[in-house]
Amino acid sequence: MEHDTIAAISTPMGEGAIAIVRLSGDEAIKIADQLYRGKKKALKEVDSHTINYGHLIDPETNEVAEEVMVSVMKAPHTFTKEDIVEINCHGGLVSVNRVLQLVLRAGGRLAEPGEFTKRAFLNGRIDLSQAEAVIDLIRAKTDRAMNVALNQMEGRLSKLISTLRQELLETVAHVEVNIDYPEYDAEEMTHDLLLNKMKDVHHHIERILTTAKQGKILREGLSTVIVGRPNVGKSSLLNSLVHENKAIVTDVPGTTRDVIEEYVNVRGVPLRLVDTAGIRETEDIVERIGVERSRKVLKEADLILLVLNYSDELTHEDEQLFEAVKGMDVIVIVNKTDLPEKIDMDRVKEIAQEHPVVTTSLLKEEGVDQLEESISQLFFRGSLEAQDMTYVSNSRHIALLEQSKSTLEDAVSAIESGLPVDMAQIDITRTWELLGEIIGDTVSESLIDQLFSQFCLGK
Amino acid sequence: MEHDTIAAISTPMGEGAIAIVRLSGDEAIKIADQLYRGKKKALKEVDSHTINYGHLIDPETNEVAEEVMVSVMKAPHTFTKEDIVEINCHGGLVSVNRVLQLVLRAGGRLAEPGEFTKRAFLNGRIDLSQAEAVIDLIRAKTDRAMNVALNQMEGRLSKLISTLRQELLETVAHVEVNIDYPEYDAEEMTHDLLLNKMKDVHHHIERILTTAKQGKILREGLSTVIVGRPNVGKSSLLNSLVHENKAIVTDVPGTTRDVIEEYVNVRGVPLRLVDTAGIRETEDIVERIGVERSRKVLKEADLILLVLNYSDELTHEDEQLFEAVKGMDVIVIVNKTDLPEKIDMDRVKEIAQEHPVVTTSLLKEEGVDQLEESISQLFFRGSLEAQDMTYVSNSRHIALLEQSKSTLEDAVSAIESGLPVDMAQIDITRTWELLGEIIGDTVSESLIDQLFSQFCLGK
Repeated sequence: MEHDTIAAISTPMGEGAIAIVRLSGDEAIKIADQLYRGKKKALKEVDSHTINYGHLIDPETNEVAEEVMVSVMKAPHTFTKEDIVEINCHGGLVSVNRVLQLVLRAGGRLAEPGEFTKRAFLNGRIDLSQAEAVIDLIRAKTDRAMNVALNQMEGRLSKLISTLRQELLETVAHVEVNIDYPEYDAEEMTHDLLLNKMKDVHHHIERILTTAKQGKILREGLSTVIVGRPNVGKSSLLNSLVHENKAIVTDVPGTTRDVIEEYVNVRGVPLRLVDTAGIRETEDIVERIGVERSRKVLKEADLILLVLNYSDELTHEDEQLFEAVKGMDVIVIVNKTDLPEKIDMDRVKEIAQEHPVVTTSLLKEEGVDQLEESISQLFFRGSLEAQDMTYVSNSRHIALLEQSKSTLEDAVSAIESGLPVDMAQIDITRTWELLGEIIGDTVSESLIDQLFSQFCLGK
Repeated sequence: MEHDTIAAISTPMGEGAIAIVRLSGDEAIKIADQLYRGKKKALKEVDSHTINYGHLIDPETNEVAEEVMVSVMKAPHTFTKEDIVEINCHGGLVSVNRVLQLVLRAGGRLAEPGEFTKRAFLNGRIDLSQAEAVIDLIRAKTDRAMNVALNQMEGRLSKLISTLRQELLETVAHVEVNIDYPEYDAEEMTHDLLLNKMKDVHHHIERILTTAKQGKILREGLSTVIVGRPNVGKSSLLNSLVHENKAIVTDVPGTTRDVIEEYVNVRGVPLRLVDTAGIRETEDIVERIGVERSRKVLKEADLILLVLNYSDELTHEDEQLFEAVKGMDVIVIVNKTDLPEKIDMDRVKEIAQEHPVVTTSLLKEEGVDQLEESISQLFFRGSLEAQDMTYVSNSRHIALLEQSKSTLEDAVSAIESGLPVDMAQIDITRTWELLGEIIGDTVSESLIDQLFSQFCLGK
């Protein structure tokens, strides 16, 4: 267990009223006390969970460095189960950096990304899937996505997984009793009973996995590409989606200029609009980024919005676009119904095959509702799941659940093919381990490091 | 006095570990209690200045809406002198907006920009110059700028101004005693004594004003333009400045893509690099933005960095640039000393006149230090003022001090030209009022509204 004292800026970077520098570790209060000058007493003497007004003094110059409110939270009833000090200062870049520098000079170590949450995990306050939910919650793009993360953070997935593991453990125990003490016949695990247990767990895992696609969409957003010939209305479509829904612009820190992703919230589904800058600037993504790259962008998309011109005949280019998006989730938008019909709608429906076709007049703001309904239908069948639904949304969890499902199937077929029950035990134990990785019970240190490194600083 | 309860997001927008929704007003605790569910008791029962772990429950669905730490600070020992509740939630956009919405639905009113600080002022916790310093502190681009703001926030300027006003008030009182009770002769205010008093106050105001230019630079940054023919090394210069010093990129919210200003910290002087995108993209600001606009940009700049090519003859274009920046603060940079000398350095020094000339090889990273020294010399004569120096940095304050100086001069010349002392009284009273506007003692409501509207939300 690490116990040195870590520190980081825990609020987003930028200008705001308040910024927070957070410390966690054995020396957190001692370090803060080296800098703090309050009206009454030293921080080591204040009660836990109190807020203390005062100033930070730069020990080198003995000058006031900042006016602060210092929150002191003593172990173990804290986020990390260690002593935590939160220094609330003015929310400017210079101010918060100054406070951080003072803290580091006084003996704090700059925290790695996610290190506070990692400590909460390592110190046993939360399990791994709960820790992972913290970052999902912060990154959530819609209310529904936040609810999925919140449920996971509150331990719903953990509980589900723990129950299944308990089931497996008991089964293995029974099998072992059978092997070690064949004479001890209390509730002997027959082939049939074992089989039923395994099928039951398998069924539960399958049920959890049915939520995976939707969970993943809620968590990561639907990567959406708008394609179409020039002047069919791609940028109007983009603007309608952004305008009708609240657009969330995400700046990736450090690369502010280049990577700007725009999210729109379509009935709780976060749409991540890919290359919106390209569309806005050139009105033609395919031309702009070149055939090679555009195919790659298309291939990586979760949803294609293919725009056609209602008032123009279907061209060879249009048909090529249909060819390029074959096998993907596509919604066909026939735009400009305010102009005379020149397109052959029957032919459109024919080449669209099973893909939904929506007609719009973006100019007159008509049809956007139907488009949003189509998107919601395509991925959620329009059904708003109950809020207490536990989704599995994290790719790591999904992969582990799929492996668990597969090892269980191995166990089942071993039993069914008449092999001795103890042969299935290996597969059952392996399943138990795989499920354990989800909640961090049976997981390597390097994986833990890797997982937490994806966090933002200060969490 | 307004007493309804205001609420706003007080941390910068973006992804971070923690975000804060702040409430202030009579109902702050009551509103929070409608949403909060903690382990122990209601917030109205907790001690002041305590931190309380719990959840926010959406009253409409009765579902958990977020996991929070709620800080309760009871009047009058708070920033606004009102009850303050700070809800610390997860630092995601959805999360913090959800908390804000819950608070607004429970009866909070969305705060106007600066409204928390405005209340601190209206409720008498700080004066106007201290309130203004809060926003300067948040926006400070360098440590020195932050110190200027911090000193002002701690009331140094206020104290100075108050002392001068006290002096004026006593003088007026003496004059009135003389007028009303000429027989009451206790320390009669003779012309000479009055004159000395006024000259003394005048001298103090002049001294404060000597810090104005530097103060304003520290507060607002030096708007800096790099000019020069194509390929003299403008973008190399830009990169050197940004690279050697920490660049602070400021995104203006809502216009992320268009308005990006880059600040670099040159020996404590914040350089605001104008149109850096233009330089990076085209290597030629003058050509890109057209002669008309480029003249405007030049005219508004505080500092011109004029770059010449050491290894090329001085051209007519170069001489035109010198013509265009006549009368401005210019530093001439002769770049590419790594290549053979072809420029006539004597001629450069001649047309540069009083402007400093620095030679650099940006390729070899030579000369940037001397350039920075020149910049520091030009505006601060290289002297690092003591940290406890009180700068006047705010244009509003500077204007009021200049007016005060002028009314005092009127008073002095009235006395000197032999007019009765009570004639000077009007000017002295006016000076007292003008100085009062700095600290908000004699200031109109509309001005107050206007000043605070420049604040960021949540402060």
